[in-house]
Amino acid sequence: MTYQMQPKTPAGEQVVAAAEALVPVFAERAGAADAANRLNRTNYEDLAASGVSAAFVPEALGGMGLESVHDWILAIVTLARGDASTAIAMNMHLGVSRGMAGAFQQAQARHSAAAETLALPLQAIAAGKMWICATATEPGTDNLHPLTEAHPEGKGWRISGRKIFVTMSPMATHLGMNLRMRDADGDHLVTTMMPMTAKGLEPQDDWDALGMRASGSQAVVFNDVLVPKSAVRKIGPWGEWSVAMLMNRALANLPLVGAFLGIAEAAHGIAIDKLAKQKRLGMPVVGDSGVQHLVGEMDIELAQCRAILGVAAQGMDDFVARHASSPPTMADAHRLMKDYQAAKWVVNRGAIDIVSKAMDLMGGAGYANSHPLARLYRDVRAGPFMQPFAPTQAREYVGQVALEQWPEG
Amino acid sequence: MTYQMQPKTPAGEQVVAAAEALVPVFAERAGAADAANRLNRTNYEDLAASGVSAAFVPEALGGMGLESVHDWILAIVTLARGDASTAIAMNMHLGVSRGMAGAFQQAQARHSAAAETLALPLQAIAAGKMWICATATEPGTDNLHPLTEAHPEGKGWRISGRKIFVTMSPMATHLGMNLRMRDADGDHLVTTMMPMTAKGLEPQDDWDALGMRASGSQAVVFNDVLVPKSAVRKIGPWGEWSVAMLMNRALANLPLVGAFLGIAEAAHGIAIDKLAKQKRLGMPVVGDSGVQHLVGEMDIELAQCRAILGVAAQGMDDFVARHASSPPTMADAHRLMKDYQAAKWVVNRGAIDIVSKAMDLMGGAGYANSHPLARLYRDVRAGPFMQPFAPTQAREYVGQVALEQWPEG
Amino acid sequence: MTYQMQPKTPAGEQVVAAAEALVPVFAERAGAADAANRLNRTNYEDLAASGVSAAFVPEALGGMGLESVHDWILAIVTLARGDASTAIAMNMHLGVSRGMAGAFQQAQARHSAAAETLALPLQAIAAGKMWICATATEPGTDNLHPLTEAHPEGKGWRISGRKIFVTMSPMATHLGMNLRMRDADGDHLVTTMMPMTAKGLEPQDDWDALGMRASGSQAVVFNDVLVPKSAVRKIGPWGEWSVAMLMNRALANLPLVGAFLGIAEAAHGIAIDKLAKQKRLGMPVVGDSGVQHLVGEMDIELAQCRAILGVAAQGMDDFVARHASSPPTMADAHRLMKDYQAAKWVVNRGAIDIVSKAMDLMGGAGYANSHPLARLYRDVRAGPFMQPFAPTQAREYVGQVALEQWPEG
Amino acid sequence: MTYQMQPKTPAGEQVVAAAEALVPVFAERAGAADAANRLNRTNYEDLAASGVSAAFVPEALGGMGLESVHDWILAIVTLARGDASTAIAMNMHLGVSRGMAGAFQQAQARHSAAAETLALPLQAIAAGKMWICATATEPGTDNLHPLTEAHPEGKGWRISGRKIFVTMSPMATHLGMNLRMRDADGDHLVTTMMPMTAKGLEPQDDWDALGMRASGSQAVVFNDVLVPKSAVRKIGPWGEWSVAMLMNRALANLPLVGAFLGIAEAAHGIAIDKLAKQKRLGMPVVGDSGVQHLVGEMDIELAQCRAILGVAAQGMDDFVARHASSPPTMADAHRLMKDYQAAKWVVNRGAIDIVSKAMDLMGGAGYANSHPLARLYRDVRAGPFMQPFAPTQAREYVGQVALEQWPEG
Repeated sequence: MTYQMQPKTPAGEQVVAAAEALVPVFAERAGAADAANRLNRTNYEDLAASGVSAAFVPEALGGMGLESVHDWILAIVTLARGDASTAIAMNMHLGVSRGMAGAFQQAQARHSAAAETLALPLQAIAAGKMWICATATEPGTDNLHPLTEAHPEGKGWRISGRKIFVTMSPMATHLGMNLRMRDADGDHLVTTMMPMTAKGLEPQDDWDALGMRASGSQAVVFNDVLVPKSAVRKIGPWGEWSVAMLMNRALANLPLVGAFLGIAEAAHGIAIDKLAKQKRLGMPVVGDSGVQHLVGEMDIELAQCRAILGVAAQGMDDFVARHASSPPTMADAHRLMKDYQAAKWVVNRGAIDIVSKAMDLMGGAGYANSHPLARLYRDVRAGPFMQPFAPTQAREYVGQVALEQWPEG
Repeated sequence: MTYQMQPKTPAGEQVVAAAEALVPVFAERAGAADAANRLNRTNYEDLAASGVSAAFVPEALGGMGLESVHDWILAIVTLARGDASTAIAMNMHLGVSRGMAGAFQQAQARHSAAAETLALPLQAIAAGKMWICATATEPGTDNLHPLTEAHPEGKGWRISGRKIFVTMSPMATHLGMNLRMRDADGDHLVTTMMPMTAKGLEPQDDWDALGMRASGSQAVVFNDVLVPKSAVRKIGPWGEWSVAMLMNRALANLPLVGAFLGIAEAAHGIAIDKLAKQKRLGMPVVGDSGVQHLVGEMDIELAQCRAILGVAAQGMDDFVARHASSPPTMADAHRLMKDYQAAKWVVNRGAIDIVSKAMDLMGGAGYANSHPLARLYRDVRAGPFMQPFAPTQAREYVGQVALEQWPEG
Repeated sequence: MTYQMQPKTPAGEQVVAAAEALVPVFAERAGAADAANRLNRTNYEDLAASGVSAAFVPEALGGMGLESVHDWILAIVTLARGDASTAIAMNMHLGVSRGMAGAFQQAQARHSAAAETLALPLQAIAAGKMWICATATEPGTDNLHPLTEAHPEGKGWRISGRKIFVTMSPMATHLGMNLRMRDADGDHLVTTMMPMTAKGLEPQDDWDALGMRASGSQAVVFNDVLVPKSAVRKIGPWGEWSVAMLMNRALANLPLVGAFLGIAEAAHGIAIDKLAKQKRLGMPVVGDSGVQHLVGEMDIELAQCRAILGVAAQGMDDFVARHASSPPTMADAHRLMKDYQAAKWVVNRGAIDIVSKAMDLMGGAGYANSHPLARLYRDVRAGPFMQPFAPTQAREYVGQVALEQWPEG
Repeated sequence: MTYQMQPKTPAGEQVVAAAEALVPVFAERAGAADAANRLNRTNYEDLAASGVSAAFVPEALGGMGLESVHDWILAIVTLARGDASTAIAMNMHLGVSRGMAGAFQQAQARHSAAAETLALPLQAIAAGKMWICATATEPGTDNLHPLTEAHPEGKGWRISGRKIFVTMSPMATHLGMNLRMRDADGDHLVTTMMPMTAKGLEPQDDWDALGMRASGSQAVVFNDVLVPKSAVRKIGPWGEWSVAMLMNRALANLPLVGAFLGIAEAAHGIAIDKLAKQKRLGMPVVGDSGVQHLVGEMDIELAQCRAILGVAAQGMDDFVARHASSPPTMADAHRLMKDYQAAKWVVNRGAIDIVSKAMDLMGGAGYANSHPLARLYRDVRAGPFMQPFAPTQAREYVGQVALEQWPEG
């Protein structure tokens, strides 16, 4: 009980309760979607109906008015207990819509006319008519060095390149991403958004992975896609860490870690439930000391994952609050990134281990494709490679920041 | 920053700040006390002067009015960064004085005349004149089955037996402990307190251990020690878990885990500080990728230990608040014990590993007796065997509770 | 080089060389067989043609004359580098044929006429016409307590029950297994063999698992299958460990562990090969310190797995030689089982971890179903649940034997 | 049984049997020597009397004629079961005397007159009159970059510098070490030997460490010590790996790893023995499932350490035999070093963990200074920092060699 994350805000309570209600139905549908290797559209209808997909949309615009990053993360944990593919898809959408809600609120606060325009997509989200996928990944490079590039053309930009792991793209209406842009001022990392129907935007329908099969994480090719001038916004120098980019990556990706905690919680729950009913040689297995030992190890590991994610999540909200007036320094931002990395390392690895222990507890039965653990075992392996940072980079990065050897990029 | 525990209450802020101020002086004295294998009395004078030893004494009686278990734990973490021997000694004293403060406050709340009597020892604590050591350990048995026994005699009880690990006893004025008492109603676990000057109370001056050498954790023999009737209070059946005993063990021992986190924090800090100044073949070692990796691993492990202890500590306060009016069930109490066990397992083991990594980082230098890490390496090993539970029991217990196979004793 | 197992006998050298030659072709076919969820019959034709399937058949009868358990294990390691499904299938066949070869040789040594009869199936194996699958698994029970039972009927036995994980059964010509038989002398564990065409033997064609998909490990139901009197042989009491059963389980299952080392070797090799060609931001990744660290960890873990399996394998041959004349005691046999358990624990877990590290090194690419690591990740998870013992039992068993608390069953 | 290393040569059998006979007496003396922080000279008299100190001296010269590196290592494992301080001291002496025996045998093989001169010190060793300590360590640098330097002077060399960790130096008659020498041909790594009575050789009597307290590992200062021209021999370039240096470090240091396996074996044995006699609440603890689990884990870890060291040790003999005629390449030598590193990593860490588990099993009793585990806990920590490589370097080095990124120095 102690370690299970609990919502910290009233809006969070609503969002999490709505997500909680979807867990059993998502869990029931997850096997079929995994087998079909397809996004489960019914899940998204439910997400819209329940209001979860509009969690960050202000209440005045028809949403739930969520602001806490902690509670966002808990919502992702919760959804992932039902279906991790859907949870990571929803995470992208929520991350982008959080940014949109922030822009709207700032405009409103300064009584800007832009508020009205900014309200429109939020209302579309609340109506379940706008779904935004986002991508930060390209092969052979990293988040700081996207090779997809925007070239100026007339009143707009022509975008060319190739993104992979574009989760939820088969049903998204819009796509957000970072890319490269060079102008007289230098070499920039910029962000943009466009409709999925944009000319030259070519989904590859090539998603066929070990797990997260219902996430629709196909590649998308951009063949000279034209976007208006206003659709491209600079966020920092290309190839170098900036405060904005560090914050952005930490804030957008810690919730993703929540999906893996959700998988671990699901595996833990399945194992406990099935053990309660199992007998071996006629005796209830729950009385077996070997089973108790292994359950104890699994339970401690879950406590540990919940604790670090809960604290990191609260730390995000605290960071945002602390820096509402005084902007963070590069050192602050690197430390935020380090904190996210610690949680990512522990939870990604812990979740893999918890699923593995659950399989140890289930024996050969858990190895059948019909057993939900077999899917969780495949889904949970997606955690470590999510950027930033790869397992080959994370420990070194954390050490550098701890030693105040600030990494440049 | 995110993972470092922070005080949650104003009283806690004061106590922790006072403890913090003692860290450098305690650290400076720790080596000599360790070498002398003696309690460092000056530390206790400082603890009295700073008010830390009276943390739980109500402000009206001259203390700091601490109530939060979380902040108590953080105070122990803090003290242990300076000297773990003193921290575990202080923990015993604080645990007992917390109980005394609670009794006083309850008496006061119901306008009982007893409040005045109960105020006296609290005032003595605030004046630095009363120091209470406590013990729960006897060889060959466990917390639930003490063999030290109280036999009725006239208006009092005669107590006989032998306790070990009676931390701080060489300078304590009083001693609290659990023991066995049999009467017409059954076989009971009872608690008592007595002055260290009681006739028949024989300290053994036999403490010579691998670490925690300045904790004065000698054995004490009780040779027909006479205490008044009122000094013995029943807390549950002998040899069986009760709600009271589960809560008591969890609440009193989680702060002890804090001492090991404090040791880990000290080791982490020493390693980082020394690395910042070190060169190898003329190059600053902080730029070495191998050093960065290992620092990263140590840093992540510290984050994990801080997170789980922080969450468990907050959980204790929440538990107390939740059950202020509705008493906990056995299942509630076992789950509290399980939560404490998870934190104990992770932190005891993590702290050992963090010290070990710090030694890996320091190389041969850290192996010299003059290096503070050599002491921390010895001190940190005291964590796992502290009861309840031993490393041979903890995982099985956690598994039993997770599987709702309630252990009886 | 040092840690890689090397054949210890001339016959072993031949068998291993033959297996080695099949690795690339098996590896090439493995993906398709996995996708089809079917045994790859061409592999077995190659195994027959190369002589590997007749490894234990005496040279005089057309086989390779293998005798060393160590070299058998190395052959399985080798085959599994190409296709673990085929390796575990072949292991069953080899284990049974080793027993048959032993019986033949004993008969020959005592100039028994039975030798001629015993030669026939060995010649059939050498001719690639006899393939034996074996099973020891039933749901809800363990190796010592099979519920499939032989009841006497006229001159034979009627066998009824259900076995699962009957690897290679879709193409086997014969099936060997242990079962229960009760007679006037007591309750026995017996062994039997029968043709797959026996009336009442009903393959369930239900194998659809997370991994080892080309192993054909379907369930088989026995509906009053009739076998002749001579086809059932007692090996010990039902439900109790006997020397014979301990030796049998240890000798037959250690080679199975080899399959998981083979998977680990394949994953290690794939990762090293791919990294050698990879660039990140234009730089060869092999120069990256984070990559080097992780490769180092993976390499050390592989050394450890190879070492313990190599020593355990040699220990099996030594045990057989030592007890050729003086039969082992129960304590000897339990210690042999303990040694097998230690190797199983280290290699099963190490192999899972090596595959996981290889995936960490490959990043998102290794998560695609088209990447061979995705299959290895699924295959390698089959190791722990193979009996005896389950992960919930192994540590306790090893501890019991180390403490001379001989387990009874 | 299977995993315990066994001698591979007749000479090794003798040496190991002689070492085995010393285990109980060494163990009995170890506590007092540790407390006194002094070398135990009686141990060395016993080593001389038993012939162990002359293990590598040819039989014709009065020694045991040992040649196998594997059996050398096993002798060190064995001695360390009694007293690790003595084992690491003896290892230095044996390593140097092995080199001297090799030089003598080569001279003899080519009928060189030098053989007679080379026989003298070997005879002195056999007579227990020559004891050689060796050192490779200086602060702030590594084995490849010694700063102690030989400057030419007349017919000899003047040596100045400071070495640390000069194990056994308080009773050694001679000292061997590597140093730097610059001449017209370049900057060299050279080796030398000198009597401990050499003028300017100043032992510092400063050894006061956490553990290995009876090893006499003081610092030694060299103040213009004069040695004859012939006493300095080039072994490779200063600051760069050479085949000779890689082989030398691997061959001399793998036996040192054996000392830590010996500590682990001692801890394992102590725990098992004591548990066999222990009761808790009146019941033998060996029947406790939690105890069995932990013993099982400890036992498996010991099997793993024994296996990897046994295989690495045999690999050293195989390497020497393989390259008797064809000299190794740099790649061969790096792979040998990598194999040593894998064994060092697993055994150093495993031994620490085994001692830790033994302490977990002993509870508070093992924390008393009077308990042998308390000393083993301190001794075992010396393993990781021994060079090459430090824990900050080992994984990266192993990864580099595995990826064929040959490190230069």
